Amino acid sequence: MDNTPMRTRLSVHLLRSPARMSILGFALLIAVGTALLMLPASAAESPLGVVDALFMSTSATCVTGLSVLDIGRQLTLFGQMVILLLIQLGGLGILTVSTLLFMMMKGRPTLSGQAIIKDTFTYGEGKQTVTSVLRAIFATAFAIEAAGALCLYLRTAPSEGWRQAAYPAVFHAVSAFCNAGFALYRDSFVGYREDWIVNGVLGVLIVIGGIGFVVITDVKNRFIGGRDRLKRLSLHSRLALTASAILILLGALAILFMEWNNTLSTLSVPGRLLAALFQSVSSRTAGFNTLNTGLMANETLFMLCIFMFIGACPGSCGGGVKTTTIAGLSVAAISRLRGFRRPQVFRRTLTEASISKATSVVMMSAVVITLTVMVLMVSELGGISHTRTQGRFLELFFETISAFGTVGLSTGITDTLTPFGRLTIAALMFIGRLGPMVIGLAVSRELISRIQFAEENIMIG
Amino acid sequence: MDNTPMRTRLSVHLLRSPARMSILGFALLIAVGTALLMLPASAAESPLGVVDALFMSTSATCVTGLSVLDIGRQLTLFGQMVILLLIQLGGLGILTVSTLLFMMMKGRPTLSGQAIIKDTFTYGEGKQTVTSVLRAIFATAFAIEAAGALCLYLRTAPSEGWRQAAYPAVFHAVSAFCNAGFALYRDSFVGYREDWIVNGVLGVLIVIGGIGFVVITDVKNRFIGGRDRLKRLSLHSRLALTASAILILLGALAILFMEWNNTLSTLSVPGRLLAALFQSVSSRTAGFNTLNTGLMANETLFMLCIFMFIGACPGSCGGGVKTTTIAGLSVAAISRLRGFRRPQVFRRTLTEASISKATSVVMMSAVVITLTVMVLMVSELGGISHTRTQGRFLELFFETISAFGTVGLSTGITDTLTPFGRLTIAALMFIGRLGPMVIGLAVSRELISRIQFAEENIMIG
Ligand SMILES: [K+]
Ligand SMILES: [K+]
Repeated sequence: MDNTPMRTRLSVHLLRSPARMSILGFALLIAVGTALLMLPASAAESPLGVVDALFMSTSATCVTGLSVLDIGRQLTLFGQMVILLLIQLGGLGILTVSTLLFMMMKGRPTLSGQAIIKDTFTYGEGKQTVTSVLRAIFATAFAIEAAGALCLYLRTAPSEGWRQAAYPAVFHAVSAFCNAGFALYRDSFVGYREDWIVNGVLGVLIVIGGIGFVVITDVKNRFIGGRDRLKRLSLHSRLALTASAILILLGALAILFMEWNNTLSTLSVPGRLLAALFQSVSSRTAGFNTLNTGLMANETLFMLCIFMFIGACPGSCGGGVKTTTIAGLSVAAISRLRGFRRPQVFRRTLTEASISKATSVVMMSAVVITLTVMVLMVSELGGISHTRTQGRFLELFFETISAFGTVGLSTGITDTLTPFGRLTIAALMFIGRLGPMVIGLAVSRELISRIQFAEENIMIG
Repeated sequence: MDNTPMRTRLSVHLLRSPARMSILGFALLIAVGTALLMLPASAAESPLGVVDALFMSTSATCVTGLSVLDIGRQLTLFGQMVILLLIQLGGLGILTVSTLLFMMMKGRPTLSGQAIIKDTFTYGEGKQTVTSVLRAIFATAFAIEAAGALCLYLRTAPSEGWRQAAYPAVFHAVSAFCNAGFALYRDSFVGYREDWIVNGVLGVLIVIGGIGFVVITDVKNRFIGGRDRLKRLSLHSRLALTASAILILLGALAILFMEWNNTLSTLSVPGRLLAALFQSVSSRTAGFNTLNTGLMANETLFMLCIFMFIGACPGSCGGGVKTTTIAGLSVAAISRLRGFRRPQVFRRTLTEASISKATSVVMMSAVVITLTVMVLMVSELGGISHTRTQGRFLELFFETISAFGTVGLSTGITDTLTPFGRLTIAALMFIGRLGPMVIGLAVSRELISRIQFAEENIMIG
């Protein structure tokens, strides 16, 4: 085993204790990013303090997009490059780790560590090694980002200049694919809200970046490569695609209805359709906005909170508790109401393990968000009557869920947070980034065989 | 069967299609109550309009306590008696129905209707018939209410007068045991906030009324009657008692901490302890208040929203998704995280049916509340920017969950709702009252045997 190349040995470690390796890896990346952002070379004016540098580094690494700075003006090109690199490494990192973990666990939740590694290295009739999977992920990601950057460049170059348009095109393509939501413009993409090509390119990048590598591979093999033309899509891919489509459509319709006379009112009718659709695509985890979040109606902000909580698909760059988690629980609830003993969908039965994992992830996430909201309300508002802090509840609630779901939308209060509030939000971005995956992992490890106690019903409802 | 007494035939119907019978029964009671409250004899000034009469009748029948009137002043004694009767019938109704249904389903979720009825009539070695269970429920409820009324009377008579104190004592004892939360005083029990006896009596009535008849019987047989002195408490009773104790303690501590310098600030230190404890006991479903809800801090209101969502124990007069529902899901999440294959607690294993029922109830409730909040924000605020309606989100969110959980706490906006808003809240009280139980029933009916599809995992988190 001493001849194993470095890369493979890393993978072995990753697979042996994936939670610890992911947490350490992300923490290290954030620490390095913080140090780099504190350099005088990063800031356009005075250097960043440690709290703000840590906040920005965490936000970039966790591909969240919440920002206490206007990065297009207050950071130098060097500082922006640090952000871009953190986004790229953070985005690819989470994509890689979660994909490998899923491939490793697929259908064999009780193998011991050693066996899993051996098994994973020869996954799929000995053809797919960890190295080949990593290579495929990187190749796919870079190809999509390059294509996106090229499209953005060709669209914006005529107006912005052939030289000046290149860098923003690359930055925004990476930011979109990684679902990071960082933009070089102070108002995100409000200025492009009626530009169908820019919106379309960003939207496609966001959707592909948020659907997950497993689904991409599955769709490619079934419809494009033709390797598995006769096989059906996996249940996971079907659920992920269906849930995403439903959420995007429902969200767009709801935003259209709820914002028609508010933030959409100044746009043309096709413009309203485009803006509602883009905002729906972007709000579950990407975090770009073409509408002014700070002026939206209460009902829209509340719906976006739920969308941000749900988030993207697992094994992607996106955050949240994940579409398939909510889809699985919905299938369980609906199947039971329809009188089926087990959760069924698409002529398949969901495993009990999937449902109990989903329950764990949602319960833990709800508890974390609830506690954070309460802590922030105490720290930011000082425990005074809600009548003297009207409107702050919704703003802090929105900010908290945005951080947890690594979305990055904000009503505009990020840079008004106290240092304690900034650190709390930074911690939540980290927890929101790795928490659901780590919980998913923790509940997938070898299950303890103990005395089985007698079963007993309790009253429900 | 034609000789079966009326009472028994009703029970047979109830057991054959319990959901339909419960819904019809409550709807009928609300309709009669609405008609009575619209009579000129009910109102102290001009007669109530249909919307307000319907709202008040629904609120009383569903033992919610939200009110668009000051019932102590704007209703006549006759009108108040109508409210009291609706509370008593609604409270006993839900207590009876849910207890019978649990006894009927206990451990036999797949028997057919006829068999269940036969089985239930001879539940527990042929001793407990439906009639005997009903008799026991009524006897217990009236005994507790009478004892509570007597205590309240003896306490308040010296100051209020031996004649005047009788009626309020009866009204408030019934309102407390039924977890209705209606009070004859405009400010609920704020005037008694440092009265340990009044708070104690109300608190005990609320807890007993909210713990459920099954638990009461279980505890009595185990500790008092001695019939089952050697048997352990059922898993249901243990979970219900533990969850209630934890929620009461945690809630009191949190309120103490969060309101110390706010609504508690004018009280003595023992007074603060009492008020925090009473508010914690009352907030999950009873809805009395000794602190001014309208002046609480954001974090307290948010925590109360979660408490109101959880609610009381099933088979009681209380509302919400129920303590055991949340306890069951928590046990499932924690067991899984600790590496157990099945949800285990108190040396027992929770059935898969309990967990999937709990998932259905929570998912459906969350969807209903979410949609109602959004509808109310559109109807009450008119879809304008949240910056122009600051503070309204939290107030409407709180009001909605209060209605769903049949709690009755309010920040004070109930009588400012539009007629559409009042009807929506009334509908939600009805849904919140029967919904979780009906869902629990629906998912307990005979399960369809169909082709079992192959199992497949999905990615979670
Ligand atoms: K983001
Ligand atoms: K109540």
